[in-house]
Amino acid sequence: MDTMGRHVIAELWGCNTEQLNDRPGLERIFVSAALKAGAEVREVAFHAFAPQGVSGVVIISESHLTIHSFPEHGYASIDVYTCGTVIDPHVAVAYIAESLGVTSQEVLEIPRGRGLSEADVGRVGLGV
Amino acid sequence: MDTMGRHVIAELWGCNTEQLNDRPGLERIFVSAALKAGAEVREVAFHAFAPQGVSGVVIISESHLTIHSFPEHGYASIDVYTCGTVIDPHVAVAYIAESLGVTSQEVLEIPRGRGLSEADVGRVGLGV
Repeated sequence: MDTMGRHVIAELWGCNTEQLNDRPGLERIFVSAALKAGAEVREVAFHAFAPQGVSGVVIISESHLTIHSFPEHGYASIDVYTCGTVIDPHVAVAYIAESLGVTSQEVLEIPRGRGLSEADVGRVGLGV
Repeated sequence: MDTMGRHVIAELWGCNTEQLNDRPGLERIFVSAALKAGAEVREVAFHAFAPQGVSGVVIISESHLTIHSFPEHGYASIDVYTCGTVIDPHVAVAYIAESLGVTSQEVLEIPRGRGLSEADVGRVGLGV
């Protein structure tokens, strides 16, 4: 299997606070995001913190999706990492962002598995 | 809880091939790495692929550690993301790299939860 992959880091602000505290709801959104991007879901692990916040991961055949939510700040810290060239991680990120009703986002794509260089690390999208 | 975090991306090359295929062994290394960094382990999910390769995640109170291994290339794609200022993600990355016997590595640190800027994205270490 080729080591090459695309890792998208998304900082989502102004998200719906209730959704950021809804562990089963976030799990559904993330599994759907993986499937919409054409990924194959392998493992799902989500954890709700007290008094608030959820962390979760969906392991896919093509790598992973993760979230750490901070309802008190309307902030969700998202990663979508996909190996290979078939899956577009931005499809999953866009679905998640839309589902959470974000008002602003920052998205950074980092190439994986072929040697990092600063020139490779480009900000690919800002704002909604 | 403060949104600020440190996300370390490590590309590990020349790893021990057998270890990269040893799901229980990788799980032990990653849980140990989290604990050595002073993190609190919440969820552990590892998956072995056929014919080779392992993907896994350790969700910690402070965010997550992940691995995707490519034994046929001696390559492990690692993320260690820690929220707050108490845990040093590099402690976990160093432990993982040493445990896997890497011959070369690239390490990139990305600040999370405070707005990304290209200037923030610096390569903090190259080579072993």
